[in-house]
Amino acid sequence: MPDLILHDYAFSANCYKIRLAASLLGLTLKDRVEYDVLKGETRTPEYLSKVNANGRIPVLQIGDDTFLPESGAACHYLADGTDLIPTDRLQHAQVLQWMFFEQYSFEPYAGTLRFWLAKKGIETLTAEQKESIPEKRKQGEAALAIMDDHLSTRKFFVADKLTVADVALYAYAHVSPQGGFDLSKFPNVQAWCERITQQPGYIALD
Amino acid sequence: MPDLILHDYAFSANCYKIRLAASLLGLTLKDRVEYDVLKGETRTPEYLSKVNANGRIPVLQIGDDTFLPESGAACHYLADGTDLIPTDRLQHAQVLQWMFFEQYSFEPYAGTLRFWLAKKGIETLTAEQKESIPEKRKQGEAALAIMDDHLSTRKFFVADKLTVADVALYAYAHVSPQGGFDLSKFPNVQAWCERITQQPGYIALD
Repeated sequence: MPDLILHDYAFSANCYKIRLAASLLGLTLKDRVEYDVLKGETRTPEYLSKVNANGRIPVLQIGDDTFLPESGAACHYLADGTDLIPTDRLQHAQVLQWMFFEQYSFEPYAGTLRFWLAKKGIETLTAEQKESIPEKRKQGEAALAIMDDHLSTRKFFVADKLTVADVALYAYAHVSPQGGFDLSKFPNVQAWCERITQQPGYIALD
Repeated sequence: MPDLILHDYAFSANCYKIRLAASLLGLTLKDRVEYDVLKGETRTPEYLSKVNANGRIPVLQIGDDTFLPESGAACHYLADGTDLIPTDRLQHAQVLQWMFFEQYSFEPYAGTLRFWLAKKGIETLTAEQKESIPEKRKQGEAALAIMDDHLSTRKFFVADKLTVADVALYAYAHVSPQGGFDLSKFPNVQAWCERITQQPGYIALD
């Protein structure tokens, strides 16, 4: 494995996915380069030209010259060939199913509300942003309900063992109360979150 | 390969990704089951309990009892072990990078505007929806600009050959003019779209 450097924002649970996946796999990140997204540090000309043209964080740097954006892609790179990605064709696709679900149907709601309420502060939001909170709450709760129902008969999301799908979903689920979500409504999600913390190599979001 | 049934909505370019991937791979879908999302046919109790708890389309049914939601996961299932998914660890992750980019940074803008303007009709939109059009236009154009720049030195998105990343990005890119995007501003995207149509097994969105 080449040297790994994480272009990082400590608060971001998308960034945490990569730190958690690496730790669960026993991999050491050589460095973490911290950016303050509130100060626009991922939108500078240098960042856009060198690290990620999409201006987003995280990016996993692999060796000197390879930059891999998208948390799900970076987790897949780290976990490829390990127990965190099933070799079975259908199970591999199901892992990706939940990772796409997370990015499309959960993170835009749970992640945005956490960022707004726990980082920016509700007093900084525009009128439109404030008005959008109930709909984001509804969508985030709908995603948590789907996760809770799925976990009613399973210990983990796919193949009844820990995979990168769990890593991806855990990141924003376990801190969703910071965005105003009540996890006591989703007891299977709560129990699964507890289960994740008991995995060898688990690290908390710092 | 078990029998494949696509739970489908003909207008949806997310559904088209699966039809296109199957055709490029020479796979035959045994059946297409059509749903009218405007009539709520993917939100019925039966659909939610049997096909997809998330109430979304497409879903790839594999055999009698396995239902795989998320277009990217379904494309990965179909293409696993074929030339459309590189075996190289980094290239495989880069394919997923662009598929996550598509779902997070492109489809929510290009897909929504196409659905609103070409299917629902602008006269049916709420005031909030109409007000959100300029921002969605800006975000969609930003994604097209990133794609255009990436394609300035490449024929395809990853590994200089056709992969499921191209299938995923092509779906909404080639019909983005239906959502009011001007592809003449993105000549590398235009040339790449033309290149896709020349691939053996290509089928148009019907």
